[in-house]
Amino acid sequence: MKGGNCLNRKTTSLTIEEKERFMLEAIKEAKKAEAIKEVPIGAIVVLDGQIIGRGSNFREESQDATAHAEMFAIKQACKAIDNWRLERAQLFVTLEPCPMCSGAMILSRVDEVFYGAKDPKGGTAGTLMNLLEDERFNHIAYVESGILEEECGSLLSNFFRKLRNEKKLLKNQQKD
Amino acid sequence: MKGGNCLNRKTTSLTIEEKERFMLEAIKEAKKAEAIKEVPIGAIVVLDGQIIGRGSNFREESQDATAHAEMFAIKQACKAIDNWRLERAQLFVTLEPCPMCSGAMILSRVDEVFYGAKDPKGGTAGTLMNLLEDERFNHIAYVESGILEEECGSLLSNFFRKLRNEKKLLKNQQKD
Repeated sequence: MKGGNCLNRKTTSLTIEEKERFMLEAIKEAKKAEAIKEVPIGAIVVLDGQIIGRGSNFREESQDATAHAEMFAIKQACKAIDNWRLERAQLFVTLEPCPMCSGAMILSRVDEVFYGAKDPKGGTAGTLMNLLEDERFNHIAYVESGILEEECGSLLSNFFRKLRNEKKLLKNQQKD
Repeated sequence: MKGGNCLNRKTTSLTIEEKERFMLEAIKEAKKAEAIKEVPIGAIVVLDGQIIGRGSNFREESQDATAHAEMFAIKQACKAIDNWRLERAQLFVTLEPCPMCSGAMILSRVDEVFYGAKDPKGGTAGTLMNLLEDERFNHIAYVESGILEEECGSLLSNFFRKLRNEKKLLKNQQKD
């Protein structure tokens, strides 16, 4: 899929080329996770065209439940500008954010959120709910899904297929 | 207020005395935040009667949007048992959790969550919504509010009253 699906009425000034270029950077982060056998999810934070935060999923290696890609990217971005307010910033993430990460985006006041694949089990930026455009919170972000959706989704489905095959192989070896 | 209000059908094995004793520990953490002029919010994580994680709000000092009390307590607890799954653990926090912290509780599979004061502006454990007992996520926690509610709430209201008075004083001094 080339373009994206905007979930609310705000608009973005980014072109399709810019969105895809930045999502490729988030995909690079996802591949770093994959390389160490973590679920391949990656995120970046962009401010004024510059990447100021990067993160990849690190839950198993760190044994920290909060070690999601977006959290690292947001923390690094806050540190880069020495400010907890990431107003004007864009966040790109390969998978639709969970409640924790959506919450971190609200708290850091990220201006725009772009994601690749939808998460039917836990996505809270349009699928199960949309925390990012809930007017009861004190910040609303522009949300757009479907940026390089196929690439982002394939990374995950290939990872889980490989994992299942490895488990099957192991089970068969134990039988022999 | 002595007791608490249970928001779902699960029950807890903790006595009122235990809940209050642990909430006093969370209040200690909130006071650490207050001592460095942070909004006084504190949290602890308990496993098998032992405190394995502590945290206090540290947003302004760190300029990190994610530096909430609950996040520190959860991270420290995961580290203490070298496991991202905090099953069987209880979390005590002086203020109703925001979406990020509620999300972190779901991800870490905390068994029971006890909080003091409600947060009418951003509380997602019963007030604006209840993420912790939303059956679409892969974990549901027992939630109980109102543990030492008055003490937890006073800490916050006194802090903000003092802040307003200091601002007023400064404004008057600038006029003179």
